[in-house]
Amino acid sequence: MSSPLQGVRVVEVSSFVAGPTAGLTLRQLGADVVRVDPVGGAADTRRWPLSPDGRSLYWAGLNRGKKSVELDLTTEDGQAALRRLVAAPGEGSGILISNLHGKPWLDDETLRALRPDLIHVQVLGRADGGSAVDYVVNALTGLPYATGPEHLREPVNHVLPAWDLLCGMHACVAVLAGLHRRQRDGVGSHVTVSLEDVATSTLTTLGWLSEAHQSGRARERVGNAVYGTFGTDATLADGNVVMVTAITRRQWAELLDVTGTADAIAAVERAVGADFDDEGDRYRHRAVIVGLLRPWFAQRTLPQVAAALDGTHVLWAPFRQLTDLAIDVAAGLSAVASIRDEAGLGSHVVTTGPLRLPAEGPPQPASAPTLGADNDDVLGLTR
Amino acid sequence: MSSPLQGVRVVEVSSFVAGPTAGLTLRQLGADVVRVDPVGGAADTRRWPLSPDGRSLYWAGLNRGKKSVELDLTTEDGQAALRRLVAAPGEGSGILISNLHGKPWLDDETLRALRPDLIHVQVLGRADGGSAVDYVVNALTGLPYATGPEHLREPVNHVLPAWDLLCGMHACVAVLAGLHRRQRDGVGSHVTVSLEDVATSTLTTLGWLSEAHQSGRARERVGNAVYGTFGTDATLADGNVVMVTAITRRQWAELLDVTGTADAIAAVERAVGADFDDEGDRYRHRAVIVGLLRPWFAQRTLPQVAAALDGTHVLWAPFRQLTDLAIDVAAGLSAVASIRDEAGLGSHVVTTGPLRLPAEGPPQPASAPTLGADNDDVLGLTR
Repeated sequence: MSSPLQGVRVVEVSSFVAGPTAGLTLRQLGADVVRVDPVGGAADTRRWPLSPDGRSLYWAGLNRGKKSVELDLTTEDGQAALRRLVAAPGEGSGILISNLHGKPWLDDETLRALRPDLIHVQVLGRADGGSAVDYVVNALTGLPYATGPEHLREPVNHVLPAWDLLCGMHACVAVLAGLHRRQRDGVGSHVTVSLEDVATSTLTTLGWLSEAHQSGRARERVGNAVYGTFGTDATLADGNVVMVTAITRRQWAELLDVTGTADAIAAVERAVGADFDDEGDRYRHRAVIVGLLRPWFAQRTLPQVAAALDGTHVLWAPFRQLTDLAIDVAAGLSAVASIRDEAGLGSHVVTTGPLRLPAEGPPQPASAPTLGADNDDVLGLTR
Repeated sequence: MSSPLQGVRVVEVSSFVAGPTAGLTLRQLGADVVRVDPVGGAADTRRWPLSPDGRSLYWAGLNRGKKSVELDLTTEDGQAALRRLVAAPGEGSGILISNLHGKPWLDDETLRALRPDLIHVQVLGRADGGSAVDYVVNALTGLPYATGPEHLREPVNHVLPAWDLLCGMHACVAVLAGLHRRQRDGVGSHVTVSLEDVATSTLTTLGWLSEAHQSGRARERVGNAVYGTFGTDATLADGNVVMVTAITRRQWAELLDVTGTADAIAAVERAVGADFDDEGDRYRHRAVIVGLLRPWFAQRTLPQVAAALDGTHVLWAPFRQLTDLAIDVAAGLSAVASIRDEAGLGSHVVTTGPLRLPAEGPPQPASAPTLGADNDDVLGLTR
């Protein structure tokens, strides 16, 4: 069976996380993706983490399997070569993901004059088209003041570039939805998507902005509690810390059963007039619930907690280190990531992407290109 | 012009965040999405935040514009009705997003016997098919020990359900890529995607797992510093805290220029033998750089900082509260979110999704259905 996106050809002119993950996700599904960089590479070419030989593990991860074209985009010749590449004919071609904005030589009107059915997705930082990085957008959302232990006063940014990653996925969806319509109606698309709009839209979808709008209050800082339901961290006798949640009634009943706290919890319910089968009540009264549950955890080691909880539906896990996940991968425990040795990068982790197509067998993760490696092949077609 | 996904019909049997955001994203692009719930609704029906009338703003946000079908999935009749709905004929039909696993009456083999070209995307929690929630998966990644101020010892979960949201977007991409291939080759797809695989794959793509594999060390906790480049928080004279980053050489040069620190920074560069035009060196020596820059911020108010930085390319923003973003939306400042009043929900925030299609005008955000509102219409077609 051919790959889902075989025959689709995407030109990517973008750096950092959002645009490159959009292209990578399409590549992992079989599309042909050409990343175009300025001479010497974009600003993310040497971004940390680096391999012992100084190669960017970040850049390699984001561009695996893509072709690389290096063009002098400061010259009219380079700009014209890029436009020819973007507007090249072909049913699956005519797709551009870029994070450029305000460049007349690559604006939508100019490109669309060359190929009216172009699918053009512009990845932006700020909603007004300005640049931004994830940490700056996140600061604007208010999430950093809702993150971390209750006693903190300072803002805490998430370390995962979540807005960048989500923006990249929305850009990827925009390409595929545009492709669907083009094949149906013959028309092109021009879509813009910014980290800032992704943040606003996402926080709307989750109801958080409505809550802030209605209450006039920012969400409180609750540590590792899970807003609106039951979740807590708990420190074990061996120093491990676990995350424990009970979202459904069944999980909640099983958690009380395993920890032998059902009677005490029922007494509290009566005393405060609450119904802990309602997850909202579990959240409201989380302090006393946590107070009753944590001693059970404090008296047990991780193997003991695992033995008790693994037969139940309670959702839990130890807080681990990133190295633990890397060890799992090296041990062959992940179906989507594995270890590979490559010159310059050393022994490192590669992925085929998170989608598993059980009937089709696992794809092979490809290598990242060297900068400009595909100039002749790719540009030769459009000269 | 018709919507990109007009004519596409998706059945969604899923609760919480991942599956419903996949369906919502398709709906926002014009697909017809039927959410199927058990009688009385799934476990997320009354999830916080709630409106003053007790309706779930979370559920309303996640299911806006979808149709709702309520079925007794504990009976053979209900299960058969769902299978008929999933396998109903039509070029754009035969698409299922579910988070069910291990149910023989809805497994891929059973469904595919009814419609061989089915596009079936299963959203899972754990990589082995088990359930999980975002906070539990995040605990396994190690990110909570890399999040927050250096002085903390406890794990800090992110509050945005980032793995859930990313998993939903990957599921959405799986649907669209499957649709592309089905239209080209006539074949169906069966795809599984789990929060856990999304986390492993994403941390591989960003190079973080390779770094942990190569160094044997977990990433250090660095507060609001940005790993591998220059970013810091800074407290102002008026108590505001801002996030300031300088990723490119131009941003870095402008930041030094505005803050009048170029000479002092150059002296440090010579003293420690570093080149701060290299973002890695800016990260290595961030303590001394921050020490030189923060006094400039400490002597200025937010308007003064804005006046000085807004003419430059430096990426910065104040850390705000979620209420500030809600106020922006209420003031009409967002192109993707706005205020709407609806019975039961009250005055709340709605979104059309983050994609903007400038040539096509903004879509209208639809209302969320009431549970089972579309039983007759939708099931009537497949009885």
